[in-house]
Amino acid sequence: MKKLINRVDAILTESLDGFAAAHADIVALGDDHKFIRRRDTKSGKVAIISGGGSGHEPLHAGFVGHGMLDAACPGQVFTSPTPDQMLDALHAVDGGAGILFVVKNYEGDVMNFDMAAEMAADLGIEVQSVKTNDDVAVEDSTWTTGRRGVAGTLVVEKIVGAAAEEGRDLAALKALGDKVNAATRSMGVALTSCTVPAAGKPTFAIGEDEMEMGVGIHGEPGRRRVKLATADAIAAEMMGAILAELPAGKSNALLFVNGFGGTPLMELYLVYNAARAHLEKHGLTAARSLVGNYVTSLDMAGCSITVTLLDDEALRLWDAPVHTAGLRWGM
Amino acid sequence: MKKLINRVDAILTESLDGFAAAHADIVALGDDHKFIRRRDTKSGKVAIISGGGSGHEPLHAGFVGHGMLDAACPGQVFTSPTPDQMLDALHAVDGGAGILFVVKNYEGDVMNFDMAAEMAADLGIEVQSVKTNDDVAVEDSTWTTGRRGVAGTLVVEKIVGAAAEEGRDLAALKALGDKVNAATRSMGVALTSCTVPAAGKPTFAIGEDEMEMGVGIHGEPGRRRVKLATADAIAAEMMGAILAELPAGKSNALLFVNGFGGTPLMELYLVYNAARAHLEKHGLTAARSLVGNYVTSLDMAGCSITVTLLDDEALRLWDAPVHTAGLRWGM
Repeated sequence: MKKLINRVDAILTESLDGFAAAHADIVALGDDHKFIRRRDTKSGKVAIISGGGSGHEPLHAGFVGHGMLDAACPGQVFTSPTPDQMLDALHAVDGGAGILFVVKNYEGDVMNFDMAAEMAADLGIEVQSVKTNDDVAVEDSTWTTGRRGVAGTLVVEKIVGAAAEEGRDLAALKALGDKVNAATRSMGVALTSCTVPAAGKPTFAIGEDEMEMGVGIHGEPGRRRVKLATADAIAAEMMGAILAELPAGKSNALLFVNGFGGTPLMELYLVYNAARAHLEKHGLTAARSLVGNYVTSLDMAGCSITVTLLDDEALRLWDAPVHTAGLRWGM
Repeated sequence: MKKLINRVDAILTESLDGFAAAHADIVALGDDHKFIRRRDTKSGKVAIISGGGSGHEPLHAGFVGHGMLDAACPGQVFTSPTPDQMLDALHAVDGGAGILFVVKNYEGDVMNFDMAAEMAADLGIEVQSVKTNDDVAVEDSTWTTGRRGVAGTLVVEKIVGAAAEEGRDLAALKALGDKVNAATRSMGVALTSCTVPAAGKPTFAIGEDEMEMGVGIHGEPGRRRVKLATADAIAAEMMGAILAELPAGKSNALLFVNGFGGTPLMELYLVYNAARAHLEKHGLTAARSLVGNYVTSLDMAGCSITVTLLDDEALRLWDAPVHTAGLRWGM
């Protein structure tokens, strides 16, 4: 295993120290590295908290800041954070208007965020949760009952974050998050495995001429292991699966090509080019685009495609100012 | 070779098509894929043009837009663009106040940009060039006489771009670019090779327990091939070499940890954390920070560290609004 680290058991804390120092204008680190919080929390605003296993950076800590998350709780690599992390984060950013959790649909995450929500309720703090499940590749999988929450989680976080900034109440934010999640579909492909530091070797073996179609963001299996195909053929299959679950018609869409960490930007733009042709053939307009490494799987080569249908409200909220380490515009 | 592509000879054009479509609000593609230009060029403003071999994305096309470059000329992967590309770009973005080229110090780039400057002079268009040579790893190397221009090029482009936006004249911009380049030092390390698509195999072989200290951004040799060390030891050597060439004292610095494309963000922040300690021990303050994949080498694992001393002017220009695909703030 080749990694720029000191000791396997110090990766997360040293990385979080670096992150918090590099972005001290936006974020602060919670005690015991339990969470990253937004520096300028607002009283009277619903606080948005997300989190999950580390290794997907910039998700989630990279999306903490104005117009997006109030806090993110990082677990060990590909391991859910614990309920006490969410509770500590919640106390740090609670503005008195309730808390919205954004949780990717993995059993560990769902269990721990639900437990934190119950503990918060006992303390009289109202919590609602939006569970993202945008991955169309498979029903149920290694760590998930139902569909997995993947790169579309970024879109939900951006849009509910903007609405929270505008002062929307908790019930409205929960409804908006569910709506955006329902309008969001994703699918991924892996050309290589990733290597979890604590394991010290690739998560899965894959042939020099093979790809894992429908891979999950932890390298968990997708639909099938097949021969490597052209970018056009890959985009055709992924867009076919995504678009089959979204209504056609003259709608605006966000087209988001996400790198898993090991694939050059040149290739991501090439995939974007192929995916965009399918989107337009389906009658949708790429009103907004996002291309880059945003929801990664350590050093895995490959990418996912996400399409979100944008009504006027979602489009406006997507465009609203955001100031985080990983996503920034309008300020 | 595992890449998300259709055909090796179509990678660059298909990727540029995707890039131009994804960022059509900021950029436009020149005829025959010769350049990426800024959409809203300004009359009376010095135009800043850069370029170089592809494979370093987002450099340079990703830095075209308000407050940075007016055009970028992409060569084939790791191959200089040709003078006719620079001439066409120059005609497209010339605002009548002269042209500043920002050129990384590689023999091919220097030769082709110089030739374009001479051809422009024959047409009565004044061109000045800033040559970046921030890499302290080696004097002279595979494709360079003198030091190589690497990630510090981004810093020069950002700062002269901001000054051009303010209406600074060509002579002043040339002087500013040279000043920022002289205040900027970088060094890199590779844990793996990259794979140039046309070659189809890794550029160099490297052992499972080795690293290339002082690697260039095309995978060309650095100082020495040694056993993989801890992030702290790597940061200590790189910062030692960088800081030896910069004056100590209570100065503000930009600390920029740049990924080469194959290294997860978690590791880059960990390296940042280690590098920052050395910066502070040297008496410098990390007044500004940048961490991410900005000047890449396709899928190479590894990173570089860049330090730029920021006087008040450079600090203000670094903070000035920028709106490009790869770097954006303040707007």
